[in-house]
Amino acid sequence: MKDFIYHNPTKIFFGTDHAHRIAEEIKTYGDSVLMVYGGGSIKTNGVYDDIKGALLDGGLTVTELSGVQPNPRVASAREGIRLARDNQVDFVLAVGGGSVIDCAKLICAGFYYDGDPWNIVTKGHGAKVERALPLGSVLTLSATGSEMDSGSVITNPDTQEKLGWGTPLVQPKFSLLNPAYTNSVNPWHTAAGLADIMSHTMENYFTVYDDAFMQDSFAEGILKTCVHYGPVALQEPDNYEARSNIMWAGTWAINGLIDTGKPTAWSVHPMEHELSAFYDITHGVGLAILTPRWLRHVLDETTAPKIARMGRQVFGLVESDTMKAADAAIDALYHFFESIGIPMHLKDVGIDDTQLEAMAAACLVHTKGTIHGFVDMNEEDVLEIYKACL
Amino acid sequence: MKDFIYHNPTKIFFGTDHAHRIAEEIKTYGDSVLMVYGGGSIKTNGVYDDIKGALLDGGLTVTELSGVQPNPRVASAREGIRLARDNQVDFVLAVGGGSVIDCAKLICAGFYYDGDPWNIVTKGHGAKVERALPLGSVLTLSATGSEMDSGSVITNPDTQEKLGWGTPLVQPKFSLLNPAYTNSVNPWHTAAGLADIMSHTMENYFTVYDDAFMQDSFAEGILKTCVHYGPVALQEPDNYEARSNIMWAGTWAINGLIDTGKPTAWSVHPMEHELSAFYDITHGVGLAILTPRWLRHVLDETTAPKIARMGRQVFGLVESDTMKAADAAIDALYHFFESIGIPMHLKDVGIDDTQLEAMAAACLVHTKGTIHGFVDMNEEDVLEIYKACL
Repeated sequence: MKDFIYHNPTKIFFGTDHAHRIAEEIKTYGDSVLMVYGGGSIKTNGVYDDIKGALLDGGLTVTELSGVQPNPRVASAREGIRLARDNQVDFVLAVGGGSVIDCAKLICAGFYYDGDPWNIVTKGHGAKVERALPLGSVLTLSATGSEMDSGSVITNPDTQEKLGWGTPLVQPKFSLLNPAYTNSVNPWHTAAGLADIMSHTMENYFTVYDDAFMQDSFAEGILKTCVHYGPVALQEPDNYEARSNIMWAGTWAINGLIDTGKPTAWSVHPMEHELSAFYDITHGVGLAILTPRWLRHVLDETTAPKIARMGRQVFGLVESDTMKAADAAIDALYHFFESIGIPMHLKDVGIDDTQLEAMAAACLVHTKGTIHGFVDMNEEDVLEIYKACL
Repeated sequence: MKDFIYHNPTKIFFGTDHAHRIAEEIKTYGDSVLMVYGGGSIKTNGVYDDIKGALLDGGLTVTELSGVQPNPRVASAREGIRLARDNQVDFVLAVGGGSVIDCAKLICAGFYYDGDPWNIVTKGHGAKVERALPLGSVLTLSATGSEMDSGSVITNPDTQEKLGWGTPLVQPKFSLLNPAYTNSVNPWHTAAGLADIMSHTMENYFTVYDDAFMQDSFAEGILKTCVHYGPVALQEPDNYEARSNIMWAGTWAINGLIDTGKPTAWSVHPMEHELSAFYDITHGVGLAILTPRWLRHVLDETTAPKIARMGRQVFGLVESDTMKAADAAIDALYHFFESIGIPMHLKDVGIDDTQLEAMAAACLVHTKGTIHGFVDMNEEDVLEIYKACL
């Protein structure tokens, strides 16, 4: 096992009866809060009233930034920073899914930075985050894990870029995880969220050199949870057992535990980020389309044992031949995604072959020439995988 | 899933190359440190030199408390508190296994308390911990999980009591987990540590009402890790892969994750604490002897499915009949403990039938009349289990 440092101080309030706690938590930092949210679904499902009510009951002053979009734009962060400064806020509260939380992270970091926040994302113009506003989150979508990590992904439509950045300074101080808040998530986003959770888990799981047995067993537990409860949540959107297991699994897929002691290069996310950047598709859908093709592309005698292990542990395969089991595991994964309603071809989400070369080239620019991971890949590999997804 | 709050801010330095970091961590609290350790094994295996050297290199002043025993005595804590006060220490560093860390926790809490520290353990005489010295730990034995939790167990030979207590105020700020520091742990304590880890896991795992699927899958991952690597560590004490997996598993067995959302009453620990209190036996050995007999005692149609699930997931049983699988799971657990060299009868560790009634009575006093857990138990149940262990 590789040496590592593990430190995750985010406090999690999990369950249906914690909303009243958030004002108290925020008040340790000040009494003016910027509430950041998305397209307004929280106004129809009761979450807005719950949370804003709790903030006002706690005596806090609330400024609002609404309209944060999926694949959150740097423009929203710019607007949030302006609002935070104008209103001298002490705390930022993100109420939404990963996009809202990621945007709020950039607001927190940008608040103390003089230049354009896009520099923070690109690390351009010497941008360095040395201070940030404290952040909290109220999660309304099980997917990105942004509620308990220090990362953020921001899109800049002007440059057609979608890039990740992060610092422990923007990790949420607390996150409120109420599984019932996800009951109203529609089947499309429920399925895409599951794919996102599973992709995070598999990015961490699939490594060739590997002696992190416990962490991999945990990863299998997360995947099994998604496979077990995904169909239940789609069938019965109000099923608390399913929503709560999926929500907690989403958090642990990417909060720094299951990749401890392992090499951490990711393969599928960089390829998907180009799909989202060029076509603004739903991130989790892109990941689901790519992952089985990626596994098929890298399948060989070196990678087969780990893929077979996933098949046996997660999908209950009993095939004893390693290569056959690995092959069946990839099929099982593909069919699982298909079964939860994800369109499994790029053409189904409006992507044709016209930009594949451009996306493959951009992907390798953003990964500095090589995608490190389960198997290292070059532009040729990425293009082949994109083509296999058509 | 039940509502819960999860918050574990302990920073973990895991691996072979972190000793140089601890002085820097401690200096954020002050420059005088009390180093607490046990019987001196750290002086022969190099750990003492490593750690004391790092503290002195970092410019810290070091006071030492040595001689903390397994089943740590309140007398050691009293002595530590005196030393800490006399030397005006700013920080306590425990270097050892759970006993040393647990003793250090009481020193941290007792430092600011005027009365006898035993009151903190019993919550007697209105004792309440409102402040504590900050604590760090360097782990030398994979077992109790005290390196990343807020609990402590202290023995008072005068009253023949071994009792648990805890507060987030005494949770380590950081813990250094160097698996190589456990290479010199002898087979007896390696096996007892494994049994302790597995017992913590099973105490959390075995509940009848249960929809915490992910947490239970993680618990199975911890148990599989112990079953997989325990024999390896015993065969090859310097095997880093085995020692590192066991060490990390021990931490996650009891740091508050796998019991999230579940009822948390424990059954076997209260029964074992009487064995240790009356006979000063090795805690993990007592747990290993008790657990299979406890499972056999509570086995019925309600409990069988969960016991069978453990058998299938952890021991790879393929028996389809639930009751038969549960029965075989208990046998597999018994034989696993036996295979790692644990004497599986009380008489093997010097306990005869003369005090069984007294221990059963004391156990129920300490659990206020009922052991809540997988199945609620009374004094009669405890006595029967003790007898089955003879």
